[in-house]
Amino acid sequence: MAFTPATPDYAERIRESFARGKMMDLIGAEIAAIEPGYVAIALPHADALTQQHGFFHAGAVATIADTAGGYAAYTLFPAGTSVLTAEFKINFLAPARGVRLLARGRVIKPGRTLTTCDIEVAALGEDGGEKLCAKSLQTMAQVQGRDDIARPG
Amino acid sequence: MAFTPATPDYAERIRESFARGKMMDLIGAEIAAIEPGYVAIALPHADALTQQHGFFHAGAVATIADTAGGYAAYTLFPAGTSVLTAEFKINFLAPARGVRLLARGRVIKPGRTLTTCDIEVAALGEDGGEKLCAKSLQTMAQVQGRDDIARPG
Amino acid sequence: MAFTPATPDYAERIRESFARGKMMDLIGAEIAAIEPGYVAIALPHADALTQQHGFFHAGAVATIADTAGGYAAYTLFPAGTSVLTAEFKINFLAPARGVRLLARGRVIKPGRTLTTCDIEVAALGEDGGEKLCAKSLQTMAQVQGRDDIARPG
Amino acid sequence: MAFTPATPDYAERIRESFARGKMMDLIGAEIAAIEPGYVAIALPHADALTQQHGFFHAGAVATIADTAGGYAAYTLFPAGTSVLTAEFKINFLAPARGVRLLARGRVIKPGRTLTTCDIEVAALGEDGGEKLCAKSLQTMAQVQGRDDIARPG
Repeated sequence: MAFTPATPDYAERIRESFARGKMMDLIGAEIAAIEPGYVAIALPHADALTQQHGFFHAGAVATIADTAGGYAAYTLFPAGTSVLTAEFKINFLAPARGVRLLARGRVIKPGRTLTTCDIEVAALGEDGGEKLCAKSLQTMAQVQGRDDIARPG
Repeated sequence: MAFTPATPDYAERIRESFARGKMMDLIGAEIAAIEPGYVAIALPHADALTQQHGFFHAGAVATIADTAGGYAAYTLFPAGTSVLTAEFKINFLAPARGVRLLARGRVIKPGRTLTTCDIEVAALGEDGGEKLCAKSLQTMAQVQGRDDIARPG
Repeated sequence: MAFTPATPDYAERIRESFARGKMMDLIGAEIAAIEPGYVAIALPHADALTQQHGFFHAGAVATIADTAGGYAAYTLFPAGTSVLTAEFKINFLAPARGVRLLARGRVIKPGRTLTTCDIEVAALGEDGGEKLCAKSLQTMAQVQGRDDIARPG
Repeated sequence: MAFTPATPDYAERIRESFARGKMMDLIGAEIAAIEPGYVAIALPHADALTQQHGFFHAGAVATIADTAGGYAAYTLFPAGTSVLTAEFKINFLAPARGVRLLARGRVIKPGRTLTTCDIEVAALGEDGGEKLCAKSLQTMAQVQGRDDIARPG
C-alpha cells in the first residue's frame, strides 16, 4: 500500500516528537526509518532492559512496538492533531535475544478517527541475521484540535 | 475465586525473581501485593517515564500490567517451572497521569499449560483518589523443566 | 459503576435493532437482560452451533460476546448515532458445553468516540450451574449522524 | 515462509473435519484453499448473515477468520493431536459488504504447544475486486493424545 503523508514535514514532526519523549531516552530507543505509513524503531541491547535470562523484557518489546505503530499512523495525520494509543495486542513468538531489536510499524488501514497498524519486532543477532520475535496489531486514535506535536502513548 | 499456591514460598520466589529483574529497576517499579493468583505492581511517577504531555508512556503502563499478570500466574506454578508471556492485549482508557500507577493482575483461569489473567491499571492522584486507566487480558505459558526462578517477559 | 442511559427508550431501541438482525435469528440468540451499560445475550444449545466434540463453536461464542458488548455500549449512545465494533479480543477458557451460553457485556469506559467493554461468557449446565468459558475485551465506535437503529457488527 | 506438513494427508484431514462441523454448514462457509501453513475459507453472501445495513455480521467475519487460522495451524499438527483456539483478536477495518468474504489464515510461528496465525479477511465485490475488511491475530493450542480429527473452535 502506498500512502501520501498529510504534511510535507511528517518526518521532521516525528523526529521532534521523539526527541522530546523521555521514555525512549530511558530505554535507548532510536528511529531507524520514517516513510509514509511506516516507521521503524531500533532498540540496542542493554543489561537494564533484560529479564533474568538475558533476553529483552516483554515490556521493552511492547514499548517499541507501540511506538513504531503510533508514529507510522502519525505520518498520515494532518497538522493540528495528535496521536493516542487506543489499544494493542502483542504476541511473543520467540525469546527476544540479540544485539538489537527492530520494530517495524505499518499502517494497514488509515482513518480520520481510527488508524490500524500491524507491527513486527525482529531480533537481530551478531551475525546480522534476524528472527521474528513479536507481532502486534494496534488501534491508534487521532485527537483533533491539539496543536502540539504528540507522542504516541 | 480462591486459589491455592503451588508452593509455600510463592511470595518469596516472586520477590527474588523481581529483585533480579533489571527492567523493573530501570523504570522504578515495586511489588505492592502478592497473594495466591493476585499480584499488584506499583510505579511511582518519574519524568523519565513520561511522554510529552507529562503522562506515563503507554509502554510503561503495558510493562507493569504484563509483570503484574505474569507474577499473578506464577504464584500458582509449581517448583521447577518458569513463566513466559505468550501474548496480551491492553486497552488504554484514560490518560495515565498521577503520582503513581498501580497494576493489579488476577488469574481468571489457571492451567497446566496456559494461564489467563485479567489486569487493571489505576492511576493514583495526589488526593489518594484512583482512576482506571488501562485494562489488559493476558495469556501466560508455563514452561516445564527449567528450575531457575523465571521473570515474566 | 452506575450509568445513565442516553435516551429513555434505550431498551426498546435495542430490542428493535435485535429483532431486525438476521444473524441473531440464524443462531437462535436471545436478549436476556438490558440495563444501562449492561446487556446479556443467551444462546440455547443447538446441534447446528457445534463443532465435532459437541461443544459450541468458538465463532458462536465470539458472536454473542460481540453482540452483548456492542449493545451494552449502545445503551449509552444518544439518538442519531449507531454502534460499530472497532475490534475485540477473546480468550477461550474452557470448552463451551452446556444447555446454553450466557454472554454478559459491561461497559468499563464510556466515551463519545470509543467505548470499551468487558464481556464474560458462561456455559450453563443442566443443573443450573455455570462455568466461565470465555472472556473478551472490546472497543466499540460511536458513529455520528446515522439516524437509523444500528446493529453491532 | 515455507512449511512442511506434519502428515501427508493434511488436506484430507481438514476436509474431513470441516465436513463434520455443523457451524460451517449453518453459515454456508466453504474451504477455498489448503496449503501447508495456509488455509482460506470463503463465505458467500446470505441474508441470514447480515446485520441491518446489509453487511456481514462481525460474528460471521470472526467465525471464518477463526476457522481459517485454526486449520492453517492444523496443517502442521502431527497425527493424534487436535487443535483448539486459545484466543484471538480481530480488527474490523471496513464494512464487510460484497458477494463473498474470503478469510486467509497463515501460520506465522508454528510450535509444539502454541501456534500463532495471522488472518486477513477480504470482501469481494461483484466486479471481482477485493477490499481488506478485517485483520486477526490468533493463538492456537495443540492438544496431545486425542486421536480424532479436531475442529478449530
